[in-house]
Amino acid sequence: MSGERVGREDLMSLFEAARWAPSSFNEQPWRFVYAERGSRAWPGFLELLTEGNRSWAQRAGALIVVLSRTTFSRSGRPAPTHSFDTGAAWQNLALQGTRLRLVIHGMAGFDHDRARTVVGAPQAFAVEAMIAVGRPGPAEVLPERLRAMERPSGRKPVAGFAFPGAFPPGA
Amino acid sequence: MSGERVGREDLMSLFEAARWAPSSFNEQPWRFVYAERGSRAWPGFLELLTEGNRSWAQRAGALIVVLSRTTFSRSGRPAPTHSFDTGAAWQNLALQGTRLRLVIHGMAGFDHDRARTVVGAPQAFAVEAMIAVGRPGPAEVLPERLRAMERPSGRKPVAGFAFPGAFPPGA
Repeated sequence: MSGERVGREDLMSLFEAARWAPSSFNEQPWRFVYAERGSRAWPGFLELLTEGNRSWAQRAGALIVVLSRTTFSRSGRPAPTHSFDTGAAWQNLALQGTRLRLVIHGMAGFDHDRARTVVGAPQAFAVEAMIAVGRPGPAEVLPERLRAMERPSGRKPVAGFAFPGAFPPGA
Repeated sequence: MSGERVGREDLMSLFEAARWAPSSFNEQPWRFVYAERGSRAWPGFLELLTEGNRSWAQRAGALIVVLSRTTFSRSGRPAPTHSFDTGAAWQNLALQGTRLRLVIHGMAGFDHDRARTVVGAPQAFAVEAMIAVGRPGPAEVLPERLRAMERPSGRKPVAGFAFPGAFPPGA
């Protein structure tokens, strides 16, 4: 990532894409708390990251903490699909970002407990992930370790995760 | 849905789309166990559903049980984002289905425990959701209750789930 800011309009279009994910009883359990580069919230968000993630994510234009509401807002009863549905919203956000030629990178390596405090999450919300959003930097200045991150990782073949009827023996 | 079968090629292209979701340490925790209409597995999958879901999903061309691996396959340690990452794969599947003009409907209303047994899920896997996949039926034969399902449900405005810096007071 280049270290540039991400335009407000681009950022909002990421959330607009996330908005259309399906969810159980249309609860829309996802929440995105974001810090734009240069904002007052930025340093606090950046400090949540592990050192490994901070080393590259410091060049992001925005950092987002993703949370989900663990209970249904109407009944207060547990919402078993809160993480699953929020993952769907995250994928929409990532696809929209790719479409806008932004770099979008999900992260699990950060201090989850401190993230709760920093974003002031009410009790009913769980911290799911963080996201770095940035403008792509010039590829030639990247060290090989980071350049490798820009290529898609290998994937299992479809037959490795989609099974007719039942799990195959030994799966 | 029309009650027609869904072509094998279409079905596989749904899983191919799911395949490209990002996941923590590229674990790819999602698993999809599917029953095609008319297959030996079909009646057992259909029986998992609540009566409300069965009333319309019996016209699907395929039913899918979505599971996720709750531990990292390498270390055996808990994988905190297993549901979140699997939700991302589900959203890709849903988008691809929409692109193919299929009806794609996620369901939480089914017997989760029995689903585990029916698909023969190993211990490390959690049941996340079921999906009905079908060809669209002629809209004019649908009762109003089902026609309403074909329209997108209302959504919160972006300002209702994306917050700069921190949760707003009272959120």
